[in-house]
Amino acid sequence: MIETSPAPQTVSEPTQRAAGWFARFEDALGRADAPAVAALFAVDCYWRDLVAFTWNIATVEGRDGVADLVQATAARVKASHFAVDGEATAADGITEAWFTFETAVGRGKGLLRLKGELAWTLLTTLYELKGFEEKAGGLRDKGAEHGVVKERASWLDRKQRDEAELGYTKQPYAVIIGGGQGGIGLGARLKRLGVPTIIVDKHPRPGDAWRTRYKSLCLHDPVWYDHLPYIPFPDHWPVFSPKDKIGDWLESYVKVMELNYWSSTEAKSASYDEGKKEWTVVVERAGERVTLHPKQLIFATGMSAIPNEPSYPGMETFAGVQHHSSKHPGGDAFRGKKAVVIGSNNSAHDICADLWEHGADVTMVQRSSTHIVKSESLMELALGGLYSEEAVKNGVTTEKADLIFASLPYRIMHEFQIPVYAQIAERDADFYARLEKAGFLLDWGDDNSGLFMKYLRRGSGYYIDVGASELVANGDIKLKSGVSVTEIKPHAVVLSDGTELPADLIVYATGYGSMNGWAAKLISQEVADKVGKCWGFGSGTTKDPGPFEGELRNMWKPTKQEALWFHGGNLHQSRHYSLYLALQLKARMEGIATPVFGQGEVHHTS
Amino acid sequence: MIETSPAPQTVSEPTQRAAGWFARFEDALGRADAPAVAALFAVDCYWRDLVAFTWNIATVEGRDGVADLVQATAARVKASHFAVDGEATAADGITEAWFTFETAVGRGKGLLRLKGELAWTLLTTLYELKGFEEKAGGLRDKGAEHGVVKERASWLDRKQRDEAELGYTKQPYAVIIGGGQGGIGLGARLKRLGVPTIIVDKHPRPGDAWRTRYKSLCLHDPVWYDHLPYIPFPDHWPVFSPKDKIGDWLESYVKVMELNYWSSTEAKSASYDEGKKEWTVVVERAGERVTLHPKQLIFATGMSAIPNEPSYPGMETFAGVQHHSSKHPGGDAFRGKKAVVIGSNNSAHDICADLWEHGADVTMVQRSSTHIVKSESLMELALGGLYSEEAVKNGVTTEKADLIFASLPYRIMHEFQIPVYAQIAERDADFYARLEKAGFLLDWGDDNSGLFMKYLRRGSGYYIDVGASELVANGDIKLKSGVSVTEIKPHAVVLSDGTELPADLIVYATGYGSMNGWAAKLISQEVADKVGKCWGFGSGTTKDPGPFEGELRNMWKPTKQEALWFHGGNLHQSRHYSLYLALQLKARMEGIATPVFGQGEVHHTS
Repeated sequence: MIETSPAPQTVSEPTQRAAGWFARFEDALGRADAPAVAALFAVDCYWRDLVAFTWNIATVEGRDGVADLVQATAARVKASHFAVDGEATAADGITEAWFTFETAVGRGKGLLRLKGELAWTLLTTLYELKGFEEKAGGLRDKGAEHGVVKERASWLDRKQRDEAELGYTKQPYAVIIGGGQGGIGLGARLKRLGVPTIIVDKHPRPGDAWRTRYKSLCLHDPVWYDHLPYIPFPDHWPVFSPKDKIGDWLESYVKVMELNYWSSTEAKSASYDEGKKEWTVVVERAGERVTLHPKQLIFATGMSAIPNEPSYPGMETFAGVQHHSSKHPGGDAFRGKKAVVIGSNNSAHDICADLWEHGADVTMVQRSSTHIVKSESLMELALGGLYSEEAVKNGVTTEKADLIFASLPYRIMHEFQIPVYAQIAERDADFYARLEKAGFLLDWGDDNSGLFMKYLRRGSGYYIDVGASELVANGDIKLKSGVSVTEIKPHAVVLSDGTELPADLIVYATGYGSMNGWAAKLISQEVADKVGKCWGFGSGTTKDPGPFEGELRNMWKPTKQEALWFHGGNLHQSRHYSLYLALQLKARMEGIATPVFGQGEVHHTS
Repeated sequence: MIETSPAPQTVSEPTQRAAGWFARFEDALGRADAPAVAALFAVDCYWRDLVAFTWNIATVEGRDGVADLVQATAARVKASHFAVDGEATAADGITEAWFTFETAVGRGKGLLRLKGELAWTLLTTLYELKGFEEKAGGLRDKGAEHGVVKERASWLDRKQRDEAELGYTKQPYAVIIGGGQGGIGLGARLKRLGVPTIIVDKHPRPGDAWRTRYKSLCLHDPVWYDHLPYIPFPDHWPVFSPKDKIGDWLESYVKVMELNYWSSTEAKSASYDEGKKEWTVVVERAGERVTLHPKQLIFATGMSAIPNEPSYPGMETFAGVQHHSSKHPGGDAFRGKKAVVIGSNNSAHDICADLWEHGADVTMVQRSSTHIVKSESLMELALGGLYSEEAVKNGVTTEKADLIFASLPYRIMHEFQIPVYAQIAERDADFYARLEKAGFLLDWGDDNSGLFMKYLRRGSGYYIDVGASELVANGDIKLKSGVSVTEIKPHAVVLSDGTELPADLIVYATGYGSMNGWAAKLISQEVADKVGKCWGFGSGTTKDPGPFEGELRNMWKPTKQEALWFHGGNLHQSRHYSLYLALQLKARMEGIATPVFGQGEVHHTS
């Protein structure tokens, strides 16, 4: 009838070990004794810092890397008050400990893994700036000003006045271009930090970037992975959210978070005045030109914002409908028509399935191999431990899951992924055999590390199967694989093997270019080249050339162009990394010194 | 550096005592042995049941009351699996234990207080029906239907189709009249339970009932008290929410919870067919008549929906502006005008302050004494233990706070309140002295039990001071007290002491009638009289005549009119009791037997 679990009376042995390590670490750090700190780390070691020490998103490796970081930052950062949070755990020779700490200017938390007595991985993250804490919980605003004041402005008066002034008579500190989930989440964090911000988005309503996509689109990631900051989805929210439902959520979120969201607004150009340390951003708001002068400019335009428009001979002669996948409206209009979809990744599969559902005759043209994972398998085997109802029950909150994920260095992340995908390959062997039998070219990434590594390295090359693969396997979606497109004729697509595919519709599911294409488009090619390619980390695998750069290029951290930032990624990344980007912006607004450690060279321009 | 609190290795003595009591209780209940169950209770005892045993909201008193309840319900309810939840606590001779249990048809939780080995107060509540659990957490919908289906309808298609059908080609099971926070919260619970429901509201947008009130209005209750079900306010939400901000929240809430909310819709008439067990409800939706046939009809029209319009000689001759407080637009238009406000409760104070802020010359006419409490004192001394940041930190979640509050029987609730208000009187003695010096007539309720008892007994007679009292004390708001209105002249209000107050504006802050006035208005006077007065519980104090009825009249529970329900109260009550009303409706929809125990007679018709 009664269940209680006895808890330990004393601090556990793993906790003691971690606490001992932190005592030595704090002592050596306090003396800025780089060799002594380095000696606390294993020979193979990784220290990943999100803004707390480096004012950057950076990972150092090995004792030399640790020593460099300490040398450059310890005296200024003054990290202290390291304390193990809860009980540390030990398994397979690894001791794992959550911890909190302080710096001269902020408060942080992190995750340590010891091998024996030495650090193997260390994650340090900043979560708030002292004196600039978010006004939440006990610090929240009172709201009503009690007392009676002549001619007092109400909340609505003030809100309307602020909305009328910002961007016209008062300048925002930051402008975010792109009001999808990335721009909205970052905007919410900046709002809570009191950073005056305008989010610019071309669509009429927040959420339209989702609403305007093809009808059957749903999130391919499960709900536990997809929360925005501050207002989690209620607990009846479906596992895979339909696109219009996410659109409505985003629209409501913008409203209740009181974001300055300029819809129906298109950014036209931007230039930076190095002398005044200020941007000039020209936007067209509901047809009217407005010039903004923010101190910081953030592109949150999405990784899928600059379409790779292909160029095939004869395209201009095509008599039917042809467009890039990003402009595909859904299958309604193509009942009974012949459709050819060039490409074999997520969009290609979704669009093929949607066209088939609507009674089109569909052929997929697969030019190179693709990694396929069934959504259920991905959820159960790859995500379930961190993002699932089970995880929530086990105390792995979204915040904890984000930090655990962040604690795995990119250098070795694939090592954790390979066994997961080996398991998936075994579990779904029949499924893969049927796909191959239908002629589909499969791969698992260059090193068999699967989907998430492909996503991080190149942002492409995979499909999370929510049903279309079955149609490919059984021939309902016709397949031409291992071919390329050589020519477009008025009524057909010609392939490299000589096949002519009759076509009323051609969809080019040919992917997207790097986000720095936005800098080229709005600022200049020079600035785009100066900051270089976004995304990928130099893994030396297909479409992610080396050298190894340790972190995703240009994402959520300082770029080679002062005051220019890139924000994006999936819902999980947008949620988590928006925190660090927001803190970097807030620190600059408040005049806190933010010397950047570990900013590398630009190796690729696109 | 490391803090851990040792937890007990064994079950505590209070937990053992509570567990022992439940073992005996379950055993006696299982045998439907009414005397044996009664013998487990103290001579002075209270068992409050919210729907779990009684399909009613009912409190029984004394061993006879307990025996009655057991006799009538035990064999059918088959309560079992009583288990102490967490550790029980003991203080001042009282053992307190949270617990869970099951019935034949549902799952419940509750709170027990023992005096010695005998029950002093017992709260039992139902929180879900077996087989009809809300689809949340692990039971949530998948959302995307994986797999590919020809001509599949998207979420948006289905939503639009459902919206087009419901009320026209498909009938809702329930119609809620009134779409304020009460109707919305209940609508959300019914939505999660799969009960097809239409909420009818006359305003153009959800939240307008707040937006259209006077400009300076804020919630007088703090945020921790005000959450809606399922989506709590984010943790930066201000303590006292401005009216327009609440309006926006409600509007967003309706959207993301996907409620069938008919705005710009006015209910015109309703009648019940006892044979068909069905209502005919005529509404005018955006100018068009629609006839609905729900099985259940709920008035969520608010306690402040039927104005007490006064009738004074000469009113028809008044040359200025005169209206009931519910129609007062705010002070903007009355700058430099002479305003007389009849009344001295919440609305009167808020309106006087607002007029004064806008530069009107304001006189308050106080006809009888009023209870005043400063908002800060109310928060700190009366609410803080249950609804505050501190409470949240102490593990008193909103859900727990609601249950603790619900566990105090109305019969003895004032005993807990009197010392709180004695403390407030002492703490704010100077404030009260200044008010009295200005001529203001103060009271603390008939038995000095203060604000919340006044609210429960009569729903009027108080002001939560957010600043206006200071203006009364210092004379900025002029005061005439202990007088009544005898006549209205074209340019003046004449008082019983002969005073003539010159007036350009008269606001009648004269309160509201009982909610069954809505039944009179929409159904018939006969039905209104049959169900009788709403609210109050027969405390035998001013405006709440006896006999003692044990629970609030007609609220959230079956009335004497089959299939007619009243929902309302403040945000806390709407949130908490909407659960029990929703379960009662769901049970009826699913054909679960719901024999009602303890429905009393109607003693008052208005």
